Amino acid sequence: MSEYRAMEDAQLIELKAKLEKEYKAFQQKGLQLNMARGKPSKDQLDLSMEMLDCVTAKDAMVWEDKLDLRNYGALDGIVEAKRLFAGLLGVAEDEVIVGGNSSLNMMYDTVARCLTHGVDGRQLPWNRQGEVKFLCPTPGYDRHFAICEHFGIKMINVPMRADGPDMDMIEKLVSKDAAIKGIWCVPKYSNPDGVTYSDEVVRRFAALRPAAGDFRIFWDNAYCVHDFTDQPDTLLNIMDECKKRGREDMVYAFASTSKISFSGSGVAAMAASKKNLAFIKKLLSIQTIGPDKLNQLRHVKFFGDADGVRAHMKKHAAILKPKFDCVLRWLDREIRPCGIGSWQEPHGGYFVSFHTLEGCAKRVVFLCKEAGVVLTGAGATYPYGIDPLDANIRIAPTFPPVGELEVAMELFCLCVKLASVEKILADRV
Amino acid sequence: MSEYRAMEDAQLIELKAKLEKEYKAFQQKGLQLNMARGKPSKDQLDLSMEMLDCVTAKDAMVWEDKLDLRNYGALDGIVEAKRLFAGLLGVAEDEVIVGGNSSLNMMYDTVARCLTHGVDGRQLPWNRQGEVKFLCPTPGYDRHFAICEHFGIKMINVPMRADGPDMDMIEKLVSKDAAIKGIWCVPKYSNPDGVTYSDEVVRRFAALRPAAGDFRIFWDNAYCVHDFTDQPDTLLNIMDECKKRGREDMVYAFASTSKISFSGSGVAAMAASKKNLAFIKKLLSIQTIGPDKLNQLRHVKFFGDADGVRAHMKKHAAILKPKFDCVLRWLDREIRPCGIGSWQEPHGGYFVSFHTLEGCAKRVVFLCKEAGVVLTGAGATYPYGIDPLDANIRIAPTFPPVGELEVAMELFCLCVKLASVEKILADRV
Repeated sequence: MSEYRAMEDAQLIELKAKLEKEYKAFQQKGLQLNMARGKPSKDQLDLSMEMLDCVTAKDAMVWEDKLDLRNYGALDGIVEAKRLFAGLLGVAEDEVIVGGNSSLNMMYDTVARCLTHGVDGRQLPWNRQGEVKFLCPTPGYDRHFAICEHFGIKMINVPMRADGPDMDMIEKLVSKDAAIKGIWCVPKYSNPDGVTYSDEVVRRFAALRPAAGDFRIFWDNAYCVHDFTDQPDTLLNIMDECKKRGREDMVYAFASTSKISFSGSGVAAMAASKKNLAFIKKLLSIQTIGPDKLNQLRHVKFFGDADGVRAHMKKHAAILKPKFDCVLRWLDREIRPCGIGSWQEPHGGYFVSFHTLEGCAKRVVFLCKEAGVVLTGAGATYPYGIDPLDANIRIAPTFPPVGELEVAMELFCLCVKLASVEKILADRV
Repeated sequence: MSEYRAMEDAQLIELKAKLEKEYKAFQQKGLQLNMARGKPSKDQLDLSMEMLDCVTAKDAMVWEDKLDLRNYGALDGIVEAKRLFAGLLGVAEDEVIVGGNSSLNMMYDTVARCLTHGVDGRQLPWNRQGEVKFLCPTPGYDRHFAICEHFGIKMINVPMRADGPDMDMIEKLVSKDAAIKGIWCVPKYSNPDGVTYSDEVVRRFAALRPAAGDFRIFWDNAYCVHDFTDQPDTLLNIMDECKKRGREDMVYAFASTSKISFSGSGVAAMAASKKNLAFIKKLLSIQTIGPDKLNQLRHVKFFGDADGVRAHMKKHAAILKPKFDCVLRWLDREIRPCGIGSWQEPHGGYFVSFHTLEGCAKRVVFLCKEAGVVLTGAGATYPYGIDPLDANIRIAPTFPPVGELEVAMELFCLCVKLASVEKILADRV
């Protein structure tokens, strides 16, 4: 194999015919594989089954805060669960609210509250200040962007680098535009790039001087303990960095056990300064009667503490590592020599972010789909579903077994090749 | 004892001195009792302990919808749980969304969605149509009113009658004012009156012709199976009545197992027309990744079906009946002969709604508190916390054991007497 773009037209035309033949053969196989969403596999879910035996009819229902956990109360979660998440997020117990099954729900609700009630009860609600804008490091998480779109928040793309989002651009934008009220960050093993923000990037976040006094960093630490290699990335503690500068009100952090215990029965949490939380809890008391406290207890009894969670994540890593190895092996072998794509090699998280030649992502996703492999829609990783270069594809290898992944990746590489050849030829006309 | 208002001044002054002495004696006792919130007692929570053994490490995790319940999916709940709530609410399975632990949260979210996105995607969001108003049958549930206040929705009091809210007033108001977008109803064993809407009232609700095409009835059927006497009230099925008239889009119904299984680990649901639900689910997919499906499974396995729930509720009734009997016995014996209050005798629900002489409720609650018995704040049962007559007190007898209740009710009756004598004397000056 050689660099496609260095090939003569005739070579490419011949290659295209060969690839098309291979592709047709694939279509005959009747595949039905899915690499679209970042879902844990059955093996991973099996790891937490004993948690279901942690709270039984025989167990104590009154714990540290003297509350019968079966009854009303503890709007912001049980103290033991706060401690668990405090350990995971590197904050104090009283800087945590533990909620229900979905951290996405907590993020949505947080944005909604800021829009209708503001950040602290003193400054005007966001939606009474005219247009509201969010910065969106891209590629990013489609569900973050969907929340903004839902509420009519204007999104501004900020390119991701190898060490986090473009901080020069962020500093410049937030310092001059008071309509910019927030930024979405997945700071560790970012979705989809798998990039962990460098210490320098985290410090620059903590040192931001936004024009908007009610600007907030939405720090979605979804993959805080989701390492799968022996060289895990480390993320600087943004709350500590903010506290050093007296700026701790600027951050809302989120995490969940969706990819630790059960995606369909986990526990989510948010962390923020005591001042932020006092305001949020006041509003939260209007919204809900409180979270499922027994499921919080289940998690506490199963994991013990943050170290217990980290030990558990090593079992996840053992399942995930071979899957990511498979994806990277195929890309390395089939794509790298052709010079038709680029990607990161993440040390954790749930995705491999693949960048095709410009203008090929949609075509690759379409070709894969027509041969029975569903990928995340091209464009999904960008605000409004518009990838300006039509180049990014999020590969989610966690759910299928390795056997299926081998087949899916074989097809994926073939489709990348075919789309690339088509594109190079079209560009030469 | 005789009618206080028929007494001479001298008699009343003497009576007042006697009551004050009794009250002082009570204050010496150092009571610490709470009849403020509608919470189940420990005995009631114990009834559902076996539910905690219904989903264990050994149990199947894939059920009727072929979904691994531990994983993502089923945004609107598992099919088995939908069926359970469909049976409780008298609707079809596909007219139900099953959520997390809190029906209050579902109501709040529903109001919030209507405000920002409207009811169907065609009509303007409520908050783009100018002032939004809700009708509030009073006395009513403070948390309903708090949601309106939170969002700046103007509340209009509608008096409760013995058979439901004043329908003449409701028909008149909704037919002429398109700013009226909703009404809060607790149609069975209303909070706090314990009144069940008559068939006639339900039919008149279904026949409403609101000026606002996006008017919605918030039908909080919180006590749908919460009978505690052998003569339970029956509530006409509002969805059926609406369907007969082609008006099924007018109702959002809610229920939860908070007072069936565990208040701190229950399951909530909402019911609405298929058209309404299709729109809601589209928006819901932006807000959340989905509810805790394993807790839904736990409920399904423990209760089986709606009849299983009804059988379970008989056990609750056996615990609750003596508590309500205690409250009613005290009122009957101590208050009725004096002509200083009125109340309903509910056949279910969680409250006894007591009406003092005008201008006495705050004083009674204050007197009780100063002697160690906490009641729901006077005024809490009215929008903005303002009871125009200062007469309604919500008695919540479910949580304390009968022994404590006897003491608390003795004090309560004493405080009603004292406050009444004070008021009658003051009015004569």
